[in-house]
Amino acid sequence: MATLGTVGEKALVNEIVKNSHSRVALGPGDDAAAIKIGDKCIVVSSDIMSKKTHASEGMSYYDIGWFAAAVNYSDVAAMGAAPIGILVSLFMERDLEVSCFREMMRGVRECSDAIGAEILGGDTKEGAGIVISGTALGIVDEKKMLKRGGAKPGDLIGVTGPIGTAAAGFFAVQSNIDAPGIKKSLFTPFPRTKEGCVLSDSGYVTACMDVTDGLAYSINEISRHSGNVYFEIDWEKIPITEETKDVIRRTNSDELETVLYFGGEYELVFTFDPLGEEYLRKALGGNFYIIGEAKGNDNVMMKSGKPVKLEYRGWEHFKS
Amino acid sequence: MATLGTVGEKALVNEIVKNSHSRVALGPGDDAAAIKIGDKCIVVSSDIMSKKTHASEGMSYYDIGWFAAAVNYSDVAAMGAAPIGILVSLFMERDLEVSCFREMMRGVRECSDAIGAEILGGDTKEGAGIVISGTALGIVDEKKMLKRGGAKPGDLIGVTGPIGTAAAGFFAVQSNIDAPGIKKSLFTPFPRTKEGCVLSDSGYVTACMDVTDGLAYSINEISRHSGNVYFEIDWEKIPITEETKDVIRRTNSDELETVLYFGGEYELVFTFDPLGEEYLRKALGGNFYIIGEAKGNDNVMMKSGKPVKLEYRGWEHFKS
Repeated sequence: MATLGTVGEKALVNEIVKNSHSRVALGPGDDAAAIKIGDKCIVVSSDIMSKKTHASEGMSYYDIGWFAAAVNYSDVAAMGAAPIGILVSLFMERDLEVSCFREMMRGVRECSDAIGAEILGGDTKEGAGIVISGTALGIVDEKKMLKRGGAKPGDLIGVTGPIGTAAAGFFAVQSNIDAPGIKKSLFTPFPRTKEGCVLSDSGYVTACMDVTDGLAYSINEISRHSGNVYFEIDWEKIPITEETKDVIRRTNSDELETVLYFGGEYELVFTFDPLGEEYLRKALGGNFYIIGEAKGNDNVMMKSGKPVKLEYRGWEHFKS
Repeated sequence: MATLGTVGEKALVNEIVKNSHSRVALGPGDDAAAIKIGDKCIVVSSDIMSKKTHASEGMSYYDIGWFAAAVNYSDVAAMGAAPIGILVSLFMERDLEVSCFREMMRGVRECSDAIGAEILGGDTKEGAGIVISGTALGIVDEKKMLKRGGAKPGDLIGVTGPIGTAAAGFFAVQSNIDAPGIKKSLFTPFPRTKEGCVLSDSGYVTACMDVTDGLAYSINEISRHSGNVYFEIDWEKIPITEETKDVIRRTNSDELETVLYFGGEYELVFTFDPLGEEYLRKALGGNFYIIGEAKGNDNVMMKSGKPVKLEYRGWEHFKS
């Protein structure tokens, strides 16, 4: 008999959302559901995590709360929506210190405050271990909403910040390396909601998603959802911090694997009309890096003059 | 040090939502959050449950899925909103049969179909045991939205269906009594979204909530949220099925405790202007029972001519 381990998370999530339609403005597979209200869309995204299996070693209760909020807001950001707020459902043990609960909620609240959103509601139940489920909501003009599909040949592709940071943070924790900057990216990623709104408002952006499942996966997703528009990425242009490079070296990690496939980070990757380059550079300030272009007939990365295939894989629960 | 067991669920949920305001049309303590979009409100409610601690003995995977959806839709119903759909986040073990996952999702889908809603999205993660977190959304005209507060002296108070059914279903399961009707109420409660819309559309309803935490608790909630309007309930008028009475007798259960305090059921309790009685009776068909009136200065139930205090307590997680 088939078990979940043989099927994998992405197939399961597809099963959950199959048959959705009618009032829903977006089919399955995008970062969030979108519900049309007049000419606006409410975007909604749910994400569930447990302290035991999803919190990185070294994360505090505050970090867990922040993280749970941030991953949900990141899905809202990926649609170009302005965040409204979050509902938080918690499973906790009866003998958990109230202070731990409060620290988690402080994390959720400060992450929400930081992006101008708020806590809308929630639920708590008694259970074994700690499970935190968030549902974030945002709002965007229907016409401006960003999707995974929409990229066109000739578009440029960009990211809002350094890549490989969460992976390096993870390796740093594992190897007891002091690297506060990248650990912060791993533990308390900052959701790119402001950048998401800039992208959707600009009118130049053709597709967008976040990099949760790894850069290579995201690029392949945009490629597939855009009707097989392909991308050529330039390795030299992918922003990677010195701290990340240092940790990769010191832990003998595979550089390509770390940057392309590890994921767990919350920058946005987006495609745009080249006419918008100057506007976006100005509007996004330092959070704008062009890493490639839509061209060719496969998703590849040029490194030292040679193409490396960008494989359509990334982090996936259940499968391993 | 304080642990969650000393604080209780309701205090924790209040802590989660404290400080909410701005775009949120409702303060903490109502059945769902409400977000204003023009003259409409999107209502959103989250609820989390685990198979181990919240599923009743004898529930199938299908029932668990249905139940998880129904409890969320019930919160949408209590606001008088038309249901839109649900997001479902699941924690499951890696070695769970895929068929169990599919049965759960069939339960969610059939419950959604039954009320004209749909599955909007979801998330799955690997974890110990099964945890299912739902977030239901609905839409209602802001002016028509039902709240816990709003009842006035002289209002009548009604319910949409029989009370004590889930409690009796629970006792029947415990004692191996064959009582299919009430077990169905316990395992696969039918969310009163249709009735909720009738209530909000009528213009006569002044307050509403569901009976999840028990009838006495709900009445006290409406009383408190309405600025201390009090109710006198008539025991003879509370609808209780013959099957429920039979199970109460056969299990030697306390009748008052079962009907007033057990909860776990999803009928709506609502107050309304007496002028609306005829309209509501017609519009709600068989799902309309007047059980009392807003009068006096305490919440009481008349039984055999004597008042019995309706205590402000009900089911609460963590505390026991």
